[in-house]
Amino acid sequence: MAHYSYLIGDQTEAIVLDPRRDCDVYVEKAYQEGMRIRHILETHRNEDYVIGSTELASRTDADIWHADSHLDYRYGHAVEHGQTWKAGRLELRAIHSPGHTLGSKSYSLRAPDGAPWMVFTGDTLFAGDVGRVDLLGMDRAEEMAALLYDTIYDNLLPLGDEVIVCPAHGAGSACGSAIADRVWTTIGLERRVNPKLEYAEQNEFVAEVARELERPPYFTRMEEYNLEPPPLGALPLPMPLAVQEFAERMKDAVVVDTRMELGFSSAHVPGALSIWLGGVPGFGGWFLPYDQPILLVSEWENPIEATRYLIRMGYDKLAGYLSGGMISWHTAGLESQSVRTVTVQQLCRLLDEGGETSILDVRSEEEVEKVRIPHAQHIHVTQLPNHLQEVPRDRTVYIFCATDKRAMLAASLLQREGWDNVVVVLGGLAGWNSVTCPLQWN
Amino acid sequence: MAHYSYLIGDQTEAIVLDPRRDCDVYVEKAYQEGMRIRHILETHRNEDYVIGSTELASRTDADIWHADSHLDYRYGHAVEHGQTWKAGRLELRAIHSPGHTLGSKSYSLRAPDGAPWMVFTGDTLFAGDVGRVDLLGMDRAEEMAALLYDTIYDNLLPLGDEVIVCPAHGAGSACGSAIADRVWTTIGLERRVNPKLEYAEQNEFVAEVARELERPPYFTRMEEYNLEPPPLGALPLPMPLAVQEFAERMKDAVVVDTRMELGFSSAHVPGALSIWLGGVPGFGGWFLPYDQPILLVSEWENPIEATRYLIRMGYDKLAGYLSGGMISWHTAGLESQSVRTVTVQQLCRLLDEGGETSILDVRSEEEVEKVRIPHAQHIHVTQLPNHLQEVPRDRTVYIFCATDKRAMLAASLLQREGWDNVVVVLGGLAGWNSVTCPLQWN
Amino acid sequence: MAHYSYLIGDQTEAIVLDPRRDCDVYVEKAYQEGMRIRHILETHRNEDYVIGSTELASRTDADIWHADSHLDYRYGHAVEHGQTWKAGRLELRAIHSPGHTLGSKSYSLRAPDGAPWMVFTGDTLFAGDVGRVDLLGMDRAEEMAALLYDTIYDNLLPLGDEVIVCPAHGAGSACGSAIADRVWTTIGLERRVNPKLEYAEQNEFVAEVARELERPPYFTRMEEYNLEPPPLGALPLPMPLAVQEFAERMKDAVVVDTRMELGFSSAHVPGALSIWLGGVPGFGGWFLPYDQPILLVSEWENPIEATRYLIRMGYDKLAGYLSGGMISWHTAGLESQSVRTVTVQQLCRLLDEGGETSILDVRSEEEVEKVRIPHAQHIHVTQLPNHLQEVPRDRTVYIFCATDKRAMLAASLLQREGWDNVVVVLGGLAGWNSVTCPLQWN
Amino acid sequence: MAHYSYLIGDQTEAIVLDPRRDCDVYVEKAYQEGMRIRHILETHRNEDYVIGSTELASRTDADIWHADSHLDYRYGHAVEHGQTWKAGRLELRAIHSPGHTLGSKSYSLRAPDGAPWMVFTGDTLFAGDVGRVDLLGMDRAEEMAALLYDTIYDNLLPLGDEVIVCPAHGAGSACGSAIADRVWTTIGLERRVNPKLEYAEQNEFVAEVARELERPPYFTRMEEYNLEPPPLGALPLPMPLAVQEFAERMKDAVVVDTRMELGFSSAHVPGALSIWLGGVPGFGGWFLPYDQPILLVSEWENPIEATRYLIRMGYDKLAGYLSGGMISWHTAGLESQSVRTVTVQQLCRLLDEGGETSILDVRSEEEVEKVRIPHAQHIHVTQLPNHLQEVPRDRTVYIFCATDKRAMLAASLLQREGWDNVVVVLGGLAGWNSVTCPLQWN
Repeated sequence: MAHYSYLIGDQTEAIVLDPRRDCDVYVEKAYQEGMRIRHILETHRNEDYVIGSTELASRTDADIWHADSHLDYRYGHAVEHGQTWKAGRLELRAIHSPGHTLGSKSYSLRAPDGAPWMVFTGDTLFAGDVGRVDLLGMDRAEEMAALLYDTIYDNLLPLGDEVIVCPAHGAGSACGSAIADRVWTTIGLERRVNPKLEYAEQNEFVAEVARELERPPYFTRMEEYNLEPPPLGALPLPMPLAVQEFAERMKDAVVVDTRMELGFSSAHVPGALSIWLGGVPGFGGWFLPYDQPILLVSEWENPIEATRYLIRMGYDKLAGYLSGGMISWHTAGLESQSVRTVTVQQLCRLLDEGGETSILDVRSEEEVEKVRIPHAQHIHVTQLPNHLQEVPRDRTVYIFCATDKRAMLAASLLQREGWDNVVVVLGGLAGWNSVTCPLQWN
Repeated sequence: MAHYSYLIGDQTEAIVLDPRRDCDVYVEKAYQEGMRIRHILETHRNEDYVIGSTELASRTDADIWHADSHLDYRYGHAVEHGQTWKAGRLELRAIHSPGHTLGSKSYSLRAPDGAPWMVFTGDTLFAGDVGRVDLLGMDRAEEMAALLYDTIYDNLLPLGDEVIVCPAHGAGSACGSAIADRVWTTIGLERRVNPKLEYAEQNEFVAEVARELERPPYFTRMEEYNLEPPPLGALPLPMPLAVQEFAERMKDAVVVDTRMELGFSSAHVPGALSIWLGGVPGFGGWFLPYDQPILLVSEWENPIEATRYLIRMGYDKLAGYLSGGMISWHTAGLESQSVRTVTVQQLCRLLDEGGETSILDVRSEEEVEKVRIPHAQHIHVTQLPNHLQEVPRDRTVYIFCATDKRAMLAASLLQREGWDNVVVVLGGLAGWNSVTCPLQWN
Repeated sequence: MAHYSYLIGDQTEAIVLDPRRDCDVYVEKAYQEGMRIRHILETHRNEDYVIGSTELASRTDADIWHADSHLDYRYGHAVEHGQTWKAGRLELRAIHSPGHTLGSKSYSLRAPDGAPWMVFTGDTLFAGDVGRVDLLGMDRAEEMAALLYDTIYDNLLPLGDEVIVCPAHGAGSACGSAIADRVWTTIGLERRVNPKLEYAEQNEFVAEVARELERPPYFTRMEEYNLEPPPLGALPLPMPLAVQEFAERMKDAVVVDTRMELGFSSAHVPGALSIWLGGVPGFGGWFLPYDQPILLVSEWENPIEATRYLIRMGYDKLAGYLSGGMISWHTAGLESQSVRTVTVQQLCRLLDEGGETSILDVRSEEEVEKVRIPHAQHIHVTQLPNHLQEVPRDRTVYIFCATDKRAMLAASLLQREGWDNVVVVLGGLAGWNSVTCPLQWN
Repeated sequence: MAHYSYLIGDQTEAIVLDPRRDCDVYVEKAYQEGMRIRHILETHRNEDYVIGSTELASRTDADIWHADSHLDYRYGHAVEHGQTWKAGRLELRAIHSPGHTLGSKSYSLRAPDGAPWMVFTGDTLFAGDVGRVDLLGMDRAEEMAALLYDTIYDNLLPLGDEVIVCPAHGAGSACGSAIADRVWTTIGLERRVNPKLEYAEQNEFVAEVARELERPPYFTRMEEYNLEPPPLGALPLPMPLAVQEFAERMKDAVVVDTRMELGFSSAHVPGALSIWLGGVPGFGGWFLPYDQPILLVSEWENPIEATRYLIRMGYDKLAGYLSGGMISWHTAGLESQSVRTVTVQQLCRLLDEGGETSILDVRSEEEVEKVRIPHAQHIHVTQLPNHLQEVPRDRTVYIFCATDKRAMLAASLLQREGWDNVVVVLGGLAGWNSVTCPLQWN
């Protein structure tokens, strides 16, 4: 989720901003530092992960303060603009920051001298980007973009170029389209290099920012959850299942294979989706249901990281993982499936030979806008479930993404739905661009 | 190597038995316990790993005592039968224990009451096995077996059934053919269940034990090294190499791919050997040269474990690893190779269809003796380099092992040597036995 | 508590014996090994710590089996003699083992060959000792000792000298008077060196074993708790309290200072008890109430270890610890107390000078039986609360123990109760014996 | 030392700035991130710790670049103003920054857009302070201060308010007098709140900054060392010494007791200096010789942290530590010493009673300037070795510092030199100020 939360403490007191659900990390850090967590603050009603506020409050005696207080929360207190909280000699002050949501709040950190030192901007201002404004629907996007402009130009930038900016997400989040890979930034650095802050006039900013971004289906569930987050308790560790037990439970479950794409291509449990470990937060929410058990296949190591990701997204029905991995599947004599791959060199030769083929490009709209593959059909991998019928069944389909991981995910989905003619291009467009073979075909 | 070493300490003093080369573990443990390592004892001149005695002595002020003192050591002092060392209130006493080597020593641990509590048996007596006796050549194996019989029956078993036995190897070592997977055992348990101790008479024991076992070619190097082990210093961490640099260095290097066999089968750097991580200690010494640089390919994680294994076997010419793994290889547009696989169900169908095929069984002699695959050609994977010419090139060769990891190693070797018709059977003999398809073909 | 619990696993299954209450350690270890905890077995109704069976069952789907099934448990199932449980290829078998309690059970571990390899003896047989038999009262001690004799001689020793013995306690436990400091032992080693097994006849054994040992007052609470252990959830981390808050809470709380005895002697919070960290499990239960909050003072580090110990003994009312330690107490200008100390050399000189003094020896009965201090009054530190009135108030009382930690505990108790004339002898009897000054005075 | 070093990396390349001598931390971090350390840069010839450049270079294949190239280095290359180094897509650029030393360099970090993002300022600009300018002697301090002014105002501040500042030291360093306790700062934040940057004119800045600060005697050794740092190898772990061995080695060694001050006051090895663990980097260099072995006494834990600190300061003659701590000293019957303490309440009462007493204030000049203790003699603890004769021997001397740790250090020094009338005031001036007793006496 590329989610950043913060523990801010001084002397014996600490405040946590936007805690995650598996919240041991805050409790233990505060304990090590000899601090008590006194307050839990939220920057907005989150849509991309289950908030850990109630979980953390149950482990401490902290009070909870939520933004977006127009919503129907079943916990905590509503933050007001200008409200302050203390942690030792430090003070946090709420700054009303609508735009991403109607009731977003930022929090400035003030040292004893009273002037702001840092600002925690939630999903309002990121390194290299601003928050998305389409969550209430595209019909309100311009309104929200205007609010965001006012928030940034009237409330945040005037804090001063020197103020350190701590956003709620880093690169890879679905909450902004182009967040940069910088952990630390400042108001002045954003003013200098953030492309969304180049627009002097509100209407220019609105025209640029009021865009529709993809919205994973799980966002809706998160928005509901976060008004009353389900309790978690100790992190549920995934349960090892022997082959026969795993096979039995597959009947009504979704199987996710978190191995790298090459192992998956060679052999996988029939019907498994290929979502490599690092892809789980970004892609799990597009493909996984909340009402079916989830089974995991991983390389030898137990799938604890995948479990953490899924739990943070509210997938609590984790039924277990295949003990012993694929080798135990094969030594038990069960049948597996494979997905064909080609190197770009092989594909060059195949194209030279001609024949009926089709190219499926599963990269995102933004990527396609930058570099287009001639003659390719384009369906973003996240949209594939809704556009299956557009993928040809009567010819070989070569699937491209930037590398090959999303292509393997697309292939696994198509294979599960009955396609048997899908081929993943190893190295994807990057590999293709690295060789001389022209990207052209009929 | 399934090598067991021991740190024995009491109060402020400790003794280390048979240290490994990357010896931080002893230094740190002794430090945590507030002990000084005073003595380093060896049970015999090791043949399967580089001994860490001189390395450890350089980090402490301990003295070194070596067994097999008829050899031409360039370090340490010779152990004598009956010699004792103290660590606090504990005493270790040397017991002459020839058989595995001419000058092997065991060490009994005596508590203040003077009676033995534990015995460190080196490669003399294992859980479920005894040491191999063929290291001096088969012409002396019966002589050595007789010595081993006398050692065990005259010097070790009389210590008493109640004495805890701590051998130098566990299951998986090349130093015994059938070591059991029990970490803790006793003289009495071995007397009860060790199949090699069923023989009442020396000549029966000799007849059973004086067998030739496989001898990895690296043993010879280890035997030389261990008379004057090369210094190591800090464990050399493998160096990340960008794709082009890796490709450049491949020209005069051996590439080892430590990923699991399925990822390897899907795509690998041309010419790479498939030695999965857990297989490095057991198989690396058969296939890797000492005079060429070694390059590693691994899944995302850096190959630190593989590096440890190789360093323990004296492979100090580690040139680096492929940064970013196979995905960086493909996105750089470089060509990769694959190895074909079949599930056992697919193979069943193929055999039904007939056609010219060949079966290659790469399991060990012992495994083949237990279950034989009809019509299969048998070459143990470790012997394959010397029997390449026996593998047919003119038809598809289906390679079997117990599962499929050694089969992939065999396939990778054959592919490197020019075979393009090798296929690995997924799940191997175990998988085959789990399905009903009869193991028969022409 | 010197409590040993065991996780026994093979393949994907595990069994836990006598889990402790802060049970993350089993869950995490099983997870790392890829095992599910299927069964939780108890050797007896424990009296010295809160059993973690229900806690662990709530984190897994394991079933619970308790011994001493004549008691009124509110959880789990009753173990029967001869009952078996499987973990992969291993089997545990219950052995009725009365003596320490009426319904104690041992469990033998059997490998696939059917013969016993290990035996988990609970509080029946220890390294160098046997379980105490006085828990039902001294009027039943001979009866229980006879049962214990039969258990050991009829059910345990016949398992064979070679069998590895895994007891439920190591050195330092209150469950046996003389447990040796050996982690690993065997039936044969115990037969050889355990002084309690020297008696050939039952009546001799009974005469030796049927002794009354000290019984910490918290045992009674543990016996009740363990019929229905209170739930714990996540380990409660102790809360830092600023000086004023700590001072405020002291009014109705007991203060325990877990620093080493020298820091305590120099300055401590008025009324604090000196129980150094390592002494908490052995001495906390004698001095701490269940119905009052407990406050902790420690060296800089947070008192997590002390917290674990206290939680295991059922002390759930931990109110917090002094943030910043004693230095924050002093910089806040609060008054502290000190305890006078003397070195043995100083004491020698003082005794030479004559004058009215008194010696208080707070060592245990067993220690006093071995070496008696002339002219000294003897009250074991654990009995001091019941014998306060015997300690003189009108003269300087020099307190001795073996070293000086228990003496400081005694001094802190006396100081809290109003004595202002207590002096701790640094180094205690050990130090005294190391100098030439004769241990004699009027 | 409150020393900050930096590892800056991108993709497979990393640069280390000002490495410390025990340099495993960089090697391991780079390894975990899959990076090679290509360059080692120094900001100046350090005076307060042994630089780890050559040590780190011996563990990698990095090249070394040193500032202050007018000095006679026996390693590395000289940095030039404007020189650049690459790590992946990042670029570091050298900025000539004289003032603290003649050849200091800062390094700006530039992202692909070419503008500076961060600046590594070495000992030039700190959070809340600037570098000291008196290292070349007070006769050149104004000249150096003027250089520093130009560096800051002409070369650093113009980088822009938004640029993140990463200095080489944090609070507690001897390299600046008033470094603030903020890890992250920016050019603009320093411009806003750094009291040294309030001066518009160079001459005002010079007048403020050209002050003489204390110069620990070990600085001279460090300056020599850092032209040719002695090799370290693996961090030498301190060796446990049994009591008799420790006592034997004391004859020609300096004993440092790193326990907290209260334990020390109660009992310590005769002649030991009290330097609590956290005080070792700040005070060790004032009191410890380079030509004598150093022995350590600590609480139970082994003194690894103290060892690291001393090694970083070039104290390589660490002879060991007292195994078992003070309790082993006392149980061996050896004599110890104590230092008397008083609470502030006790002192109030004593002063009321009158009598000949003396107050010794060992706080620093800066502290004394802020709050002066009436009638007190002032000698900064660091200056005490040179002013011993000024401390009265004929009356009780009550020693004050801000709390009581430095007072105990002073007391231990005086006691070692023969004073037997020193008393430490617990809680020090802070405690005194917290009670009502007026700080007045005759």
